[in-house]
Amino acid sequence: MRLGEEIAVTLFGESHGAVVGALVEGMPAGISVDAQSLAKDLSQRKPGGEFASKRREDDECHILSGVNEGFTTGWPILLLIANKDVRSSDYSFLPNHPRPGHADLPELARTRGYSDLRGGGANSARLTAGLVAAANICRPIEATSDWQVEAHVHSIGEVSSAEIETLPLGEGEVWDRIRCRDSAAGVKMIELVEQMKVEQDSIGSSVELRISGLPLGFGEPWFEGLEPALANALMAIPAARAIEFGRGISASVMRGSEHNDTWFRASDGPLPVGEKADGALGGMATGADIIVKLHFKPPSSIPQEQVTLNLDSGEVETLFVAGRHDPVIAPRAVAVVESVARLVLSDLAVKGGWSQDE
Amino acid sequence: MRLGEEIAVTLFGESHGAVVGALVEGMPAGISVDAQSLAKDLSQRKPGGEFASKRREDDECHILSGVNEGFTTGWPILLLIANKDVRSSDYSFLPNHPRPGHADLPELARTRGYSDLRGGGANSARLTAGLVAAANICRPIEATSDWQVEAHVHSIGEVSSAEIETLPLGEGEVWDRIRCRDSAAGVKMIELVEQMKVEQDSIGSSVELRISGLPLGFGEPWFEGLEPALANALMAIPAARAIEFGRGISASVMRGSEHNDTWFRASDGPLPVGEKADGALGGMATGADIIVKLHFKPPSSIPQEQVTLNLDSGEVETLFVAGRHDPVIAPRAVAVVESVARLVLSDLAVKGGWSQDE
Amino acid sequence: MRLGEEIAVTLFGESHGAVVGALVEGMPAGISVDAQSLAKDLSQRKPGGEFASKRREDDECHILSGVNEGFTTGWPILLLIANKDVRSSDYSFLPNHPRPGHADLPELARTRGYSDLRGGGANSARLTAGLVAAANICRPIEATSDWQVEAHVHSIGEVSSAEIETLPLGEGEVWDRIRCRDSAAGVKMIELVEQMKVEQDSIGSSVELRISGLPLGFGEPWFEGLEPALANALMAIPAARAIEFGRGISASVMRGSEHNDTWFRASDGPLPVGEKADGALGGMATGADIIVKLHFKPPSSIPQEQVTLNLDSGEVETLFVAGRHDPVIAPRAVAVVESVARLVLSDLAVKGGWSQDE
Amino acid sequence: MRLGEEIAVTLFGESHGAVVGALVEGMPAGISVDAQSLAKDLSQRKPGGEFASKRREDDECHILSGVNEGFTTGWPILLLIANKDVRSSDYSFLPNHPRPGHADLPELARTRGYSDLRGGGANSARLTAGLVAAANICRPIEATSDWQVEAHVHSIGEVSSAEIETLPLGEGEVWDRIRCRDSAAGVKMIELVEQMKVEQDSIGSSVELRISGLPLGFGEPWFEGLEPALANALMAIPAARAIEFGRGISASVMRGSEHNDTWFRASDGPLPVGEKADGALGGMATGADIIVKLHFKPPSSIPQEQVTLNLDSGEVETLFVAGRHDPVIAPRAVAVVESVARLVLSDLAVKGGWSQDE
Repeated sequence: MRLGEEIAVTLFGESHGAVVGALVEGMPAGISVDAQSLAKDLSQRKPGGEFASKRREDDECHILSGVNEGFTTGWPILLLIANKDVRSSDYSFLPNHPRPGHADLPELARTRGYSDLRGGGANSARLTAGLVAAANICRPIEATSDWQVEAHVHSIGEVSSAEIETLPLGEGEVWDRIRCRDSAAGVKMIELVEQMKVEQDSIGSSVELRISGLPLGFGEPWFEGLEPALANALMAIPAARAIEFGRGISASVMRGSEHNDTWFRASDGPLPVGEKADGALGGMATGADIIVKLHFKPPSSIPQEQVTLNLDSGEVETLFVAGRHDPVIAPRAVAVVESVARLVLSDLAVKGGWSQDE
Repeated sequence: MRLGEEIAVTLFGESHGAVVGALVEGMPAGISVDAQSLAKDLSQRKPGGEFASKRREDDECHILSGVNEGFTTGWPILLLIANKDVRSSDYSFLPNHPRPGHADLPELARTRGYSDLRGGGANSARLTAGLVAAANICRPIEATSDWQVEAHVHSIGEVSSAEIETLPLGEGEVWDRIRCRDSAAGVKMIELVEQMKVEQDSIGSSVELRISGLPLGFGEPWFEGLEPALANALMAIPAARAIEFGRGISASVMRGSEHNDTWFRASDGPLPVGEKADGALGGMATGADIIVKLHFKPPSSIPQEQVTLNLDSGEVETLFVAGRHDPVIAPRAVAVVESVARLVLSDLAVKGGWSQDE
Repeated sequence: MRLGEEIAVTLFGESHGAVVGALVEGMPAGISVDAQSLAKDLSQRKPGGEFASKRREDDECHILSGVNEGFTTGWPILLLIANKDVRSSDYSFLPNHPRPGHADLPELARTRGYSDLRGGGANSARLTAGLVAAANICRPIEATSDWQVEAHVHSIGEVSSAEIETLPLGEGEVWDRIRCRDSAAGVKMIELVEQMKVEQDSIGSSVELRISGLPLGFGEPWFEGLEPALANALMAIPAARAIEFGRGISASVMRGSEHNDTWFRASDGPLPVGEKADGALGGMATGADIIVKLHFKPPSSIPQEQVTLNLDSGEVETLFVAGRHDPVIAPRAVAVVESVARLVLSDLAVKGGWSQDE
Repeated sequence: MRLGEEIAVTLFGESHGAVVGALVEGMPAGISVDAQSLAKDLSQRKPGGEFASKRREDDECHILSGVNEGFTTGWPILLLIANKDVRSSDYSFLPNHPRPGHADLPELARTRGYSDLRGGGANSARLTAGLVAAANICRPIEATSDWQVEAHVHSIGEVSSAEIETLPLGEGEVWDRIRCRDSAAGVKMIELVEQMKVEQDSIGSSVELRISGLPLGFGEPWFEGLEPALANALMAIPAARAIEFGRGISASVMRGSEHNDTWFRASDGPLPVGEKADGALGGMATGADIIVKLHFKPPSSIPQEQVTLNLDSGEVETLFVAGRHDPVIAPRAVAVVESVARLVLSDLAVKGGWSQDE
C-alpha cells in the first residue's frame, strides 16, 4: 500500500468503510497546495460520469496535516476523502459467492476472512482516489521542472486512436465523455460503450501515457529505473494486464539495425532519433518522449447472470451482481495513470536531486 | 540495485571491474546451499554459449559469508563472482561516442562522468549473474512449497513457440542451443539467429514464464502484489520492453462475459476456470497458473557500422563496436527470468508467512 | 515520523492543526481491537491531569480504516484524534522569539519557515498520542505471548523510587497522581512538583521500564537489536536526554568478573543470573528482565520570564511564554514509554516470527 | 545489519569466516577515495594493539566495486577485508558452553543452531571493521562541510578525563597507547589497564564524542533525529550499555531555569548558550556542540575460570576461555564511535540536502 521511497504515498481505506485517502511522506517543504486544482483532479476520476459507476461521491478531499497557510510543511500530509454513497446491501452475496474476475476469494483466503470484502474492500479501485489526491500535491514539482505527463484513452475494444504525439490536447464534448484526444476514434468508442450497455456486457481498453521533457540521465538504474518503477506502479492499477514501453511488444519482432535509435544533436543537447525512439534506456531518460501503453481487461462486474462457486455448499450457482459499475475502465483510468506517473516521477526527481533547482 | 524487502538482494559490480555479485539479506537460517546447483544455474546464463557473447567467464561463485557448514545462517550472504575475461580496449570509443540503444549517455549524464562505462559498467547484463546466484540460494524455499517456476523462449522474431503449458520440459539438443521447449519452433529459431549472424544484425525475442502451484491468496495487494512486483523486477532485466500477464494485451479487446473466469471447485479447493484464466487477481494468487510474457528488444550491439554523436566535436560520426555480443537476448534471459521470478516469489512467501510451514 | 519495519507506525498532525494521529501498516489480520482499552490508554497520557498541561482534550480516537467488525483486517489502520482545545494566540511571539530549550528555531531553519511552529507544531509531544493509540492496537500481540511491559516514574529531581522489580503494580492515589509505584517516594515527588509550581519552575525526571518474559533469542542483531531499537524509539520521546540498559552507566566502572552474569538453568530453560543481569545481549533476549532507565530534562516551558533572541531585531529580549505546560515530564511519559516499548517489541516479534503461534 | 537510509551500510561476514566487510549503497558519485586514509582509519581499530586482542590482522581493505579511477561512481561500494589470523580451535567449547556475558546462547536460540558462533560469529566486534571502512568513504562529505567528529576515551573504571572541549587533539605516546586526550588521566588509565591484566580481569569504560559545526536545523525530527539516530547506531556497538546526550543523566535532576539554554547571537547566527548547551533539540542541530557519552561494560571475555551451563548435560561447569581478548573496550572503540557518528551524519546530510553545496 506504499508507493515511492523519497516521496512515499500510503493508501488507506475501504470501498464501504468510512474513508479512503493517502498519507504522503517526504514532500519537500514550501510546495504550494491548491484546493481547486485538487478538486478538479479528483473530479476527473470520480464515479458518476456517463460511462462510469452510478455511485455518487463528491470526493471532497480534506487536507488534515502537513500543509500550513497554503504550503507544504515537509511533514506527513494526511489526505482524507469520506465515503458517502455506500450501498452495502448490494454485497450481501459475499463472502460465500466470490465474484468472477474479482479478488474477493484470494483476499478472503489471504486475510483468513478478516477483511471487509464489500465493494472490493481495500482492493477496490476507489482507493485510487488517494493516488490522484497525492499526485495533485506533487504537481508543482512538475511545473517547476520541464517535464509533462499526459494520458488519454488509446483504445476501447477494437477501436483505436491515432498516436498521442500527433493529437491535440483533450477538450470538447468527445473528450469530456470518453477521454480520447482523437475525436473521430472517440465517437466510435462512445458508440461501442453504449452498445456494451445495451448488451449488458463490458469491454477491454487501453490508456496511452506520454512523458515528455525529462532531462537526459533523469532516473535510476535497475529496479528503481523509469520503466521498472512505472511498470510496478501502473500494473497496480486494478484491472491492468499488460504494459508496453516505446515500441513495446513490436520490439520483439524487430531487428537491431531497425530498432536502434541514433544519437543526434538537438537544440538543447543530444537526442536519440528514430520512429518511437526509446525515451528511457537502462531506467534513465534519453530526452525523447517516453511512451507507455497500459492495457486493461474489461470490468469484471457485468449486469448479467454469471455462475460462481458457493463456498458454503461447494456447489456452482448463478450470481447476479447488482452494484453500480463501469462498462469500460480506460476513461476513468486516464486520471489515475497520469497521477501514478506523476508520483513515480516526483519520487525519482527527489531521489536524483532533480527537483532542487527551484 | 536492491530487489525485495524481506529477502533483499543488492547487486554490485561492473562489467569491466574486479567482480560482480550480490548481497542477500533476510534469508532464513537453515536453508541448505548446494554448490553444484549454484554452478549449474550460473552456467545457464553465462556468456560463451553458441549464440551468446564470446566473452569467456567461468562464473565461479564464491560464498563468502552467511553460510555455515552447508546451511544459511540467517546473516547476510555475500556472493562474489570475479571478472576474468575483460577486454576493455574494445571500449576505447567511450565516453565520447555513446552507442545507439545503450545507456552509455544517460549514465554519463546521471553520474556526471564518474561511473565506469566500459562494457555497460554497472548497467551491464553481466550483473544478472548476481541475480541468478541469489535466486539459487532461494531454491529450497520453492522446493518445500508446492510452487514451480519455469520459463522458455517463446519467440524470436516472427517465429513463435506453442504455449508453454502444452509443452514438455526442455531437454535435448534444441533446448540446449536455444532454450525453447517447442522443438519444431526451436529449429526455426536457430535458423533465424544464424541468419542474423550472417547479416551482422540482431533480432528481438520474448520469454514466457509460467508459475504454477501458488496457494490461493498468496501475494500482497497493490504495489507489492504479484503482477506489480513481477513487472517491476522483470522489466529491470536489460532490454525488456513490454510485459503481459494472462491474456495480456488481448485482454484490452475482450468483453467481460468472455474474459471473466468462473470459480469452480477443483480437487484441492476453488479454482478459476477459463482460457488462460488469470493466475493472479489484485496481486494475489487464484490457484491457476500465472502466465507472463516478457518482450525483449533486439540487442543494441550489432557488428555493423552505425552512426552516433561525437560528444566532443558535436558531429555525427560512424561507429563500429567490436565487443563480443549476443544476436538475441531470450535464450540467455530464460535463466534470468526464472531467477527474478524466484526471488520475487521467495520475498512474497516470507512476507506473507507462506514459507514457514517447513 | 515512521517507527518500525514490519509493524510501521507513521505519526502525523500538528499541535495546533486539525488532528494528530497515526497510520499503522503491517498489523496482522485478526487482532481484536477494543475501543475501551484504547480510550483508557489514551487517558493515561492525555493533558489536563493534576501536574499536567491545562490543555483539555478528550483525545477520542477514531479508527477510520483497517478494522472490520472489531478485528484488524491486515490493511493500514488510520487512527485519528481531533485537536479541540487549541489556543494559538498563546504563540503570537513566534516565529521571531524562539523559546529556550525548544525546537522552534532549528525547525524554522530546517523547513525554511514553512512549518507550523505553534505549540511546537509537529515536534510537539502531543504527537505521542498517536504512538499510544498505535501501541494499544498491538496489545493483543503481547497478550498472546508471554512478555510484559511495565513502566513507572523512577525519579523526579533528587527523589528516587526503589527498583521497579521490588514494587507492587501501580494503584491508589499516589499512583494516580504521580505514576510512581513506590508510595513513599511518590509522596515526596508530589511535594517536589508542587514546590516547583510555587517556584514557577520545572524539574527533571526519569522513567524506569521493565520488559519481562521475552523468550531466549527474541530480537535481532546489530542496529535492529533490542537495545538499539529501543534506544532509537525511546530517545525520540521529546525531552529524553539519556538512556541506560541493565546496569547502565555503572557498567563503565565495573570489572568483568563482577559484571558477567552466569548462565544457570531455570525452570523453563537457561537464564543469566546476576545483580541486574542483562536482559539482552547483542540485541537478543536472554530471558532475564530488560531494565531501561530513560532520563528526561525538565520541561523547557516555565512560567517565568526568560530571555531569548529576537530574530527580527537581532537583540536579546525578555520572553514570557504563557501556554499551558507540565512542570515535570515523567508522569505523563510513563504511558508513552510503555507504548513505544510495545511498538518496538511487536515489530521485532513479527520480524522474528515470534508472534505467529496464536 | 543495515545502517542508514540514504547512505546505507550493510555489514557482512563472521569473525571466523572468510571475510568481514560492508556494502555501501547511496554514496553520491564523485567522492574521492583515498586508500591511505582508509588504511589509517582501519589501523586505529585493528586488533593487536598494546591493550587489545592479540589477534593479528593486517585489515587490508579491498574496494571491489563502486569506485572508478579514485572516485565513487554512485553505485554500490563493496569493501572486503579478509580474515587471516583465525584460531578457531579456541572455540571448541561451543555451542554447548555459552560464555557468560556473550551473545552465544541467544544467537544459538535465534538461529536454531545454524549460525557460526566461533569468535562471536557475526555478532563479533570484528564486524565493526566494516563500519570503519564505510565511514572512511564518507570522510570527504565531512570535509566539504563544516562539521567535525572527534572522540576519545572519557573514562576507564573510576579514572576520568577532563571534558573533551577543554583538551587538545590527541597525539603523543599516551594518546597512541590509550586514546585519551587528557595525558594525566591517560597515564592513570594505562596503569589501571595494566593492573587488570595482572589481575586477569577486565574493566568498564566510556567514550566521549563531540560533534561540532553542524549548521542550525541540520537533522530530522522524531525517530530519524540526531539523538535517536545516533543512539540507535552507537548502542549497536558491542558492549555499549548507556548513552548520554548533553547534560545526560544529570538533566533528570536539574530545574528548567537551570537547564534552559538561552538563544544569543553568535558571529554566524543564533546560538544557544549555557553550560553544556544542547547541540540538538528535537533531533535537529542548534549550532552548539553535540556531546555524547557512550558507556561500555567491561569485556566479558576474561582470562580466568568462570562457570556456565553445559547445555548438553544441563549441569553448571567451569569454563576457561582462552581466545585473545581486550581488557578494556574504549581505546579501540574510539575509532568505531567516530565512524558510526560519521555514517549517521553523512546519511542525515544527504537526507536533508546539506551535502550538495560542493
